[in-house]
Order: sequence, then structure tokens, then C-alpha cells
Amino acid sequence: MAYKTETVAILGLGLIGGSLARALRENRFSQRFIGYGRRLPSLEQGVALGVIDEYTQDLGEAVSAADIIVIAAPTLVAADLLDEILALTDGHAHAPLVTDVASVKGNLHARAQRDDGTLPPNVVLGHPIAGSERSGVAASDARLFVNHRVILTPDVGNDPAAVDTIAAMWTATGADVVQMSVKDHDTVLAATSHLPHALAYALVDALAQSDASDDIFRFAAGGFRDFTRIASSDPVMWRDIAIANRDALLSAIDTFGEHLAILREQVAASDADGMEATFTRAKTARDEFAAILAQRQRGH
Amino acid sequence: MAYKTETVAILGLGLIGGSLARALRENRFSQRFIGYGRRLPSLEQGVALGVIDEYTQDLGEAVSAADIIVIAAPTLVAADLLDEILALTDGHAHAPLVTDVASVKGNLHARAQRDDGTLPPNVVLGHPIAGSERSGVAASDARLFVNHRVILTPDVGNDPAAVDTIAAMWTATGADVVQMSVKDHDTVLAATSHLPHALAYALVDALAQSDASDDIFRFAAGGFRDFTRIASSDPVMWRDIAIANRDALLSAIDTFGEHLAILREQVAASDADGMEATFTRAKTARDEFAAILAQRQRGH
Repeated sequence: MAYKTETVAILGLGLIGGSLARALRENRFSQRFIGYGRRLPSLEQGVALGVIDEYTQDLGEAVSAADIIVIAAPTLVAADLLDEILALTDGHAHAPLVTDVASVKGNLHARAQRDDGTLPPNVVLGHPIAGSERSGVAASDARLFVNHRVILTPDVGNDPAAVDTIAAMWTATGADVVQMSVKDHDTVLAATSHLPHALAYALVDALAQSDASDDIFRFAAGGFRDFTRIASSDPVMWRDIAIANRDALLSAIDTFGEHLAILREQVAASDADGMEATFTRAKTARDEFAAILAQRQRGH
Repeated sequence: MAYKTETVAILGLGLIGGSLARALRENRFSQRFIGYGRRLPSLEQGVALGVIDEYTQDLGEAVSAADIIVIAAPTLVAADLLDEILALTDGHAHAPLVTDVASVKGNLHARAQRDDGTLPPNVVLGHPIAGSERSGVAASDARLFVNHRVILTPDVGNDPAAVDTIAAMWTATGADVVQMSVKDHDTVLAATSHLPHALAYALVDALAQSDASDDIFRFAAGGFRDFTRIASSDPVMWRDIAIANRDALLSAIDTFGEHLAILREQVAASDADGMEATFTRAKTARDEFAAILAQRQRGH
């Protein structure tokens, strides 16, 4: 079955949803963009900026007008929206494509699953690994996804043509589309993103509560600024991600805790060889990662 | 007693020692710079670049020629150099000023202490909070210390005139000189620098040893790059810092561990309010810190 791509509904018009609409318009993947959301000012701003052509606050209207529905709301809101969309489209022969941009896939997969464990043919979950320190539709940027990864997590039940169409949508934005399982996605994201956020939040909170906190922040410098940058992220968004990806995050925290305990013992024992080995392995891995990331961002 | 400042000996000619020499020459605080170190190529390069006027590999020669001796070697090497300098100058009526730039002060303080627990009048320990991703004398920069903090840790026994002279030396580089106790210095630096390095090394090492390490590094992005930047630091330098500041680092790791354990319980319990409170406190503290740091770096 071939899917139409003319009209895209963006549910939740923020940085990611707005940037996707801009990119798809600029690259002529779709012609008409409808915004849906709870916050009217964002929708009005989206029209004023030319990011969307029109908006509605009636989900049924957005769903019935759209060829592709992109859920671009925060993690837990996205799950509720997915429920509502599925209820609205249940049993429709020509249901629109449904995808999302959330940071966790397991909770959405659980909501989308049918009684037999399969996904509806038209629901293809995805996650663009892109962002910015800025947020909101005003910060949206047609080039946000260029040379960034988009992970799709297709599963049994998905129509391969639906997966291809969502992949083509992201490819049109300049992104590099890859596929993995829901479980692998959530494990990898817990390790590279959710755990680092948890560590940064825990560190800054620990220091802020210390007796010496005034001096600590007075004498911290650039390395600390970089290390803690992600602790300036939106607390509500990260609360929801921690709830949605609970098990993978707990497992990542525990693995990290084991390694920190080993390093603690090396420090306690003044184990010079042990510490040098740990630090050298880490430096080697981190230098390799940085080189690969720099190469990817140059578009190679 | 007034101290002469004409001739400065830099022991260990790397980024920090070289930058200090450049800054003091440019600001006419001193006229003659002598390099001392184990690695001949650095010393030859220092002369070729005009960072130092001459060099020697004879410590006694450097010590007897200098008005100010700056130990700019790595942490543990610095402690050994301090021993040697004290042996060379012991009982001299006109001993030169001795200072250092190492990241830990407690181990140097212990080496400098006399039998009665006081410091020699002429030994003033210090630590410029400045650095760069680059290293070596070729990367040295006369402006490296501008608007950066330099912490001096004077103690009982120090000649106030000696402390004033070392403070004036750093002020001449454009740095902002502050004083604190050795213990406070080591506690604050453990929290803001040594602990973050330990966490970054432990995290990257944990991920590198994971079964999914290929995928993990393939899908990590900019936030992870910033968070782990300090894991690309010199393993030998950080091994030595962890040895020199062992007790304060262990205490910082344990305090962090307690806060991470609390956050882990909040994640495990899907405690939305608890997580939001933790993340919000951290974001508030981190945003304030970032604003203060930005203001300081603009020179206000």
C-alpha cells in the first residue's frame, strides 16, 4: 500500500515539530502543515512564522485531515495522544501514518501494541537525535536534522511501505535514518543521554546542598560548565523521560555505580596503575567517539 | 622583607608555566625567565619561542639564579621538586620565593611544613584555575589567566610580604587572586573538578566495556560530547591528582553516591514530584552558576 504524504499534522509545535515542518516544506516532501496543541500562542506563532499553514485544537480534525501525523509532544503527553489517535482511527481502512519524536520508545510501543502483540501497520515509532539549547517554535530550524541520526523502531505488524514512507520523510530533512529494536533504542539512549542527565542533575544538586556550595560554584570553571550543561535541561521533560524509560535507566545507573565503586576502591588504595588503566581506556574511547562525531557532523 | 622579582625560574615548561612566563614578560613584572625541566625539547622550544631567555637542567643553578621559583610540573613531580628546592635553600638567609601551580595543595603543604607545623616564610602555595584543551609550551598564551581565578593558600609561617609578592605576580597576569585555606581549596577542587573528572572517566569506561558499546558511541550526540569532554584529559595527570587529593576526592565521591542513590530510588518509584524537585533544584543552581561564570569571563 502506498501512503500519501501531502498533509502533515504536527501535534505539539515546539522546536522539534516546528523544525520538522520547516524542513519538509523547504524540501517539498509535503505541501500542507497543520498544527495541533494545547497552547494557542505557539500555534498562532507557528502560523505567523509560516511554519504551519493552519492549526486546530480539535484532535479529530487534525487526524482526519492528515496523511502523516507526527506526535511531537513531551514523552508522557505523547503516550496519551497516541492512545487518543488510535481510538479515533481504529478500524479505519485508510488510517493516516502515525509517527513520533519522543526520547523513549518502550512506553509508546506498549500503548500502540494490539492484543496479539503486534503494532498497527501505520504506526511507526521514531526518534531524531537532535536538539538545541533553545526551545519553542520560534527557535525552529529547517536544518536542525541535517547530518543527525534518526532512529526508527519498526516492529512486527508494521507495513513495510509505512516504514519506508516515514524513513523517506526523515531522509528529506537531511537526516541519516537507521533502524533498531525498541529495546536497543531505549538501552542505548539510557546510556548516552538519560544516565548522563541523571548524573549531572545528581552532581549539581549534591553540590548545591553542600555547606561549601557558595565557594564551590564561585571557583568552578569551564570544565565544570561543560560537564553540567545538561543539568540546565527542562526538569519536567527529564522527569517524564525517567518515568518512561525507568527500567533501562535503573540498569544504566547500576552499571555506572559498579564502575564508580571500582574507581573509588582504586582511589582509596592509591592504585596508580589501576587508575591510569581506567583513565586511559576512557580517554581512548572518548577520543574515538569525538573524532567520529566530528566527522559525522561534517557530513561524511 | 621585600622580595626581588627580576628573575623567574619556571620548573616544568608546559602550557601553564609557559603562559605565566609570557604574561609576566608582557606585563613587565619580571625581566628574565629561566626554564628548568627534564625534557630538553620543551626547553629548546621555549627559548626559540622567546618564552624563556635561557634554560638549565641543573636545579641548583635555577634555584640560585631565581628571585621567584614557580613549580609548574605535574602534581606528584611538583612535590618532589619542592623537597629538592627546600633542601637546596634550607637555612639560606636570602632564599628565593617559591610557589607552584598544582591542582592539589594538601600534599605540597605536607612536604613544605617544618617540624613545628609552620610553613617556611618564602613558600606560598597557589593554583591558577585556568587551562586549555591544548598543552605544551607551544600552546602558551600571555592572556591565559586574564579574568581567571588564582587561589593562594598562605598559612602560618608565611611572610606576609612573600604572599603579597606572589599575589602581585598573578595580578600582573590579569588574574583575580583570592585566598583560602589548604583544606578548603582541596575540598572545593575535589567537588568542582576532581569528582567530575572521576565521574566522566567512570562513565565512559563503563560504556566502552558494555556489550552495546558500538551502538552507544554511534548514537551519542552533542550533549554526551560536552558531558564527557573531560574524560579526554591526560590520564597520568589525573591519576596523580587522585593520589594527591585522595581523601577529599573519596569524600566527594561518597557524597555524590548518596545523592545518586536518592535519585535512583526516585526513578525506581517513578516518584514524579521527587524527581521534578531534584531536577529543578539542580537546574536553578546550574543556571545561576553559568550566569556568574559568563559575567566573570566578560571581566565584570
